Amino acid sequence: MSLEKLFNPASIAIIGASEDAGKIGTVIAKNILELGFEGEVYLVNPKYDEIFGKKCYKSLSEIPASSADKINLAILAIPAKFVNQEILNNSKNIKNYVVISAGFSEIGEEGRVQEEELKKIAKEKELNILGPNCLGFIAPKIKLNASFAGGMPEAGNIAFVSQSGALAVAIMDAAKKEGTKFSSIVSVGNKMQITETEMLEFLAQDENTKVIGMYLEGIKEGEKFIEIAGKISRVKPVVILKAGKNEKTQRAISSHTGALAGDDEIVSAVFEKSGIIRANNLEEFFALLNFISFSRTVPNQKVAVITNAGGAGVLVSDAFSGKKIQLEDLTEQTKNKLREFLPAESSVENPIDLLGDARSDRYKKALEIISSVPEISSVICLLTPQEQTPVLEIAKEIIKFKDKTDKNITTVFLGGEKVEKAIAKLKQNEVCNFSFPDLAVTAIDSYSQWNEFRAIKTKTLTQMINEKRRAKVLEIIAKAKLENRQALYFGESAEVMAMYGINTVESFEIENYHGRNLGYPVVLKVDSDKVLHKTDKNGVILNIENEMNLSRAVSQMKTNFPQSHLIIQPMAKKGAELIIGIKKDEIFGPVIVYGLGGIYAEFLKTVDYLVPPLSLGQVEKSLLSGKIKFLFQGARGQKRYNVEEMAKILMGISSFALEIPEISEFDINPLIVYNNSQEATAVDVKIII
Amino acid sequence: MSLEKLFNPASIAIIGASEDAGKIGTVIAKNILELGFEGEVYLVNPKYDEIFGKKCYKSLSEIPASSADKINLAILAIPAKFVNQEILNNSKNIKNYVVISAGFSEIGEEGRVQEEELKKIAKEKELNILGPNCLGFIAPKIKLNASFAGGMPEAGNIAFVSQSGALAVAIMDAAKKEGTKFSSIVSVGNKMQITETEMLEFLAQDENTKVIGMYLEGIKEGEKFIEIAGKISRVKPVVILKAGKNEKTQRAISSHTGALAGDDEIVSAVFEKSGIIRANNLEEFFALLNFISFSRTVPNQKVAVITNAGGAGVLVSDAFSGKKIQLEDLTEQTKNKLREFLPAESSVENPIDLLGDARSDRYKKALEIISSVPEISSVICLLTPQEQTPVLEIAKEIIKFKDKTDKNITTVFLGGEKVEKAIAKLKQNEVCNFSFPDLAVTAIDSYSQWNEFRAIKTKTLTQMINEKRRAKVLEIIAKAKLENRQALYFGESAEVMAMYGINTVESFEIENYHGRNLGYPVVLKVDSDKVLHKTDKNGVILNIENEMNLSRAVSQMKTNFPQSHLIIQPMAKKGAELIIGIKKDEIFGPVIVYGLGGIYAEFLKTVDYLVPPLSLGQVEKSLLSGKIKFLFQGARGQKRYNVEEMAKILMGISSFALEIPEISEFDINPLIVYNNSQEATAVDVKIII
Repeated sequence: MSLEKLFNPASIAIIGASEDAGKIGTVIAKNILELGFEGEVYLVNPKYDEIFGKKCYKSLSEIPASSADKINLAILAIPAKFVNQEILNNSKNIKNYVVISAGFSEIGEEGRVQEEELKKIAKEKELNILGPNCLGFIAPKIKLNASFAGGMPEAGNIAFVSQSGALAVAIMDAAKKEGTKFSSIVSVGNKMQITETEMLEFLAQDENTKVIGMYLEGIKEGEKFIEIAGKISRVKPVVILKAGKNEKTQRAISSHTGALAGDDEIVSAVFEKSGIIRANNLEEFFALLNFISFSRTVPNQKVAVITNAGGAGVLVSDAFSGKKIQLEDLTEQTKNKLREFLPAESSVENPIDLLGDARSDRYKKALEIISSVPEISSVICLLTPQEQTPVLEIAKEIIKFKDKTDKNITTVFLGGEKVEKAIAKLKQNEVCNFSFPDLAVTAIDSYSQWNEFRAIKTKTLTQMINEKRRAKVLEIIAKAKLENRQALYFGESAEVMAMYGINTVESFEIENYHGRNLGYPVVLKVDSDKVLHKTDKNGVILNIENEMNLSRAVSQMKTNFPQSHLIIQPMAKKGAELIIGIKKDEIFGPVIVYGLGGIYAEFLKTVDYLVPPLSLGQVEKSLLSGKIKFLFQGARGQKRYNVEEMAKILMGISSFALEIPEISEFDINPLIVYNNSQEATAVDVKIII
Repeated sequence: MSLEKLFNPASIAIIGASEDAGKIGTVIAKNILELGFEGEVYLVNPKYDEIFGKKCYKSLSEIPASSADKINLAILAIPAKFVNQEILNNSKNIKNYVVISAGFSEIGEEGRVQEEELKKIAKEKELNILGPNCLGFIAPKIKLNASFAGGMPEAGNIAFVSQSGALAVAIMDAAKKEGTKFSSIVSVGNKMQITETEMLEFLAQDENTKVIGMYLEGIKEGEKFIEIAGKISRVKPVVILKAGKNEKTQRAISSHTGALAGDDEIVSAVFEKSGIIRANNLEEFFALLNFISFSRTVPNQKVAVITNAGGAGVLVSDAFSGKKIQLEDLTEQTKNKLREFLPAESSVENPIDLLGDARSDRYKKALEIISSVPEISSVICLLTPQEQTPVLEIAKEIIKFKDKTDKNITTVFLGGEKVEKAIAKLKQNEVCNFSFPDLAVTAIDSYSQWNEFRAIKTKTLTQMINEKRRAKVLEIIAKAKLENRQALYFGESAEVMAMYGINTVESFEIENYHGRNLGYPVVLKVDSDKVLHKTDKNGVILNIENEMNLSRAVSQMKTNFPQSHLIIQPMAKKGAELIIGIKKDEIFGPVIVYGLGGIYAEFLKTVDYLVPPLSLGQVEKSLLSGKIKFLFQGARGQKRYNVEEMAKILMGISSFALEIPEISEFDINPLIVYNNSQEATAVDVKIII
């Protein structure tokens, strides 16, 4: 159901309203009554006749039906044990609820049961319930503070969704200082029913929201999240600060909200797939939201920097290291225009150094010249406050200029007291000032990457499930299970891989091998679900060069692994060794991991992640921009490897992962790829069922 | 000569003093006269009789000899063209100078010549000259502002040396707000004579200075810097913000100060060797200086976090990712003590969550309990300002507590207006508050790494030059030069390597090869300074399996490289392929680069740097903590490689690099190392002369 009435109600009931100091019901009642909300408000609490001079009802049923019918939203600040019954009682008339009350899944089993029950009620009665265990929400445009956080932020275009109430409080407080303006602030608490995904869907439609910012500790219903976030990111930028980068944090999260934090690298892969802008920390999160909120245009990758201090210019230039955005090289023509009015000692290279004695006229002229360069979309104005620097005047000039251009003009005014007033002025006038050069560069870079994402038109991704193929694979799996095996034999795995277009090395059962089929050298392997790490356990003998050595190897292997199945394969030709695996993520489902193989693979960690479903284009992009891109670019003295072939293999694995969720582990190690038009070959395939 | 009188003068002459608004000489005169300096001040300018009511001398010679004799320092703010003569004229009486004047090496050839001349004067007359082209310096303890930046920072224990005047201005301005206190602020300008190294030597002795902070764009006399910085870092922490991370920055630097920026990775290696704390950006630089300035103890790696917001605790926990410092696991005993007074829903795991309704008593008790854990040296107190949070009271409790413990108590109070006063109070009382969790963690981590560095007692490093060996190598080089070769033959290189204890693969001249010496398979290589990238140019034929194939290969090679020397080597046994090279750095001299070899080496960039001279201990530490540490740790199913052997090889290369600066390029590629007690073998050695 639409959340419109929940977040934009005309009439509200506060159940558990109070006037006792220190009670949450008191803070909420005050916030709603005193901060300018113009809708109807009904206070409900059996203990009072009046609260703050306003009539208080013993129960919702006391409110005259004609009014009660129009109540869009009930906010509950009553003990957890009464919540479910209260909502059930009113579910016919009131469809939207905010449950502030704590004491649900976050406290353990008992609470979890109650939350499950409430969720069922919501579903059956078709209710929208925000929370439980949340701070509430704030809608500055209608001056509604339906939370127990104080104050009323300025109305603007940032929607902020937080899984931590306290962090929302801190951010609102910081926002006042920063001039940050919100379309809404929503504390989602336990996310019982309204999760990040529902919020994304609602906020995507909200015309007051330009950018969606979220602080998340966990993500619920990962696959749905991927689908929705991917769609919405094409329309509006979504910035997420996602906690849980290491094990200790994940522990802290589980004691905090019980959220499943998820493997951080997979979270990053999901965000990348979905076009979500990931903020690496709280400071970046602030910087990104403010920058996007104030931006006039979505930036491309070309930036100019204007400074009155060489040293500051040098530091901002350093901040571009490792970024996709770049300091644009200026043309001779532009440089000449700059030379016309700048002293000889100035630098007309980007960063443009106006020198320490620059007054506002130099900033103004430089801005005019730079903004006439059509390629550049963002300009950073740096300033350090020398004795002769008219800081405020320069700020005013920048503000004036901003209104005349569609470029993004941002500032980094370094210092303390001397720049304070000017920074306040800039912020009032919606110029984004960053405290430090690095933040400015990071914000522009991240936002411009979103621009790149949005520019790529991808059809909605669906990889069809081939039911016939699925049935065949399941048949093979069933057979193995019948034989009490946990893994497929190599021959079975090869059969499965062939169905997904992946070539495996020839392989012979030892019994059927006649010695002349393959030529030498060959490899002898034990092929058993009991010996999964073959190499570690001497389950592989490489480079067998003749028949005599082979029979010796076979008897040795039979002694070591008496009951096991043995196979013979030709030695694969040398090529680049890759690995491909499927990781089953608890939140996001199957994720493909691929990268460089070989003995050091686990140390070098040159792997990338892909989240199915995929398109060929997406996979190629990942290959050409990921950690093993050098293979496909053709390095010094090396022919390039075939990116199309590799993309098709990964698409095959993606189909396999989607089609056969029954498998519990999968990897190909190694897959040998060639740059001489020989076909890529999976030398070992492990399918655990 | 000692810089003591320069930075702590009793009597100063200002040459070029003025009272015209906007003149640098005016600002300097005012700063010195009006901000509290109690020594003698003489104003000198032929144009004035009086400046600000004080007598002005036409020239220094006019000052009565009895007074003039006592002048410790002359500050010059006159046009560049007069500077050298003026100093020369007074060089007998006055030994210390600050040259504010610009117009020296930073403007090009003409200025460079004048600067060279001035440097010569300084040397001949035994003068100390700060600058030229600098802002001057400030010594808050004696209330001396001998610069043209305004204001007088508070006296404290941070010495700040800046290669950018404007940045110094910005930092001073910010410092006022942050409560940052300085022992001195020095703008070194062109660093003609007093470079970062001289400043380090002086500040190491300065008892008012606890921490030295430097902003540097280039480093002069790299090898001397390494030596001095390495010594001083054992006594005092040195934090450097070094610009020049990418090519564009290096360009910006050269247009700014003409400084040689240096390869950034080598700079990092030098800093690591010297125990210098590298600040990655301006924000970190501030944070580190403030933290060290206020710290009560040098932190170990164990940290506790106390928070009133789970979400904030989660974010600080995330900030520990990739750091050496850790959230210390609390013992059951400690947890029980916490449980005694905390509500059941609190978390007694580290980060300790006191919950959103925590008042100062919970902070106080938690601080008491944590500070009784002897292992923990640092505590971060986080706070978000809920309605019921008594922010100021908590700050006061933290301040009170800080004076009772020798732990480092730092804070991260998140928010805006609601925490502003409390933060100011904390800073006034020398509690370091960080705006964001990540900064706190980074600062503690960096400072604790310095602690680790200082704890390792290393004898002063000198690797002896073996003159006899040097002579032998030079003889080989001379012979090659005589033959007009730019590279040594493999046989010659092997001879050289043997002198440094490095084993190379056996090698036979094609002429002397009898086919039976080696057994097969063998390798045929062209060995010529004309074919340096052998593999790229088909100058190597691998895996020759018998005599027939060998003679075929020889004739093929002779056709392709008709004039070239050919050699035969046995195929090396499989092992780990490494590379070792010597990079000649313009600033720091020879630097050893070593890492993983093989075909992907240049893409994977698993290399580390070592700066000679070295000790065996240092090299082993680098091997065991660097990018290829996994080889020496013994990974899953793999025997470990011999770290002592590898360290000795690198020590040999270090001796070679120091002993034979004549070589212009050097690498071993590959060096094959084994984990089965076989000796490491250099398969190819390139010595370019």
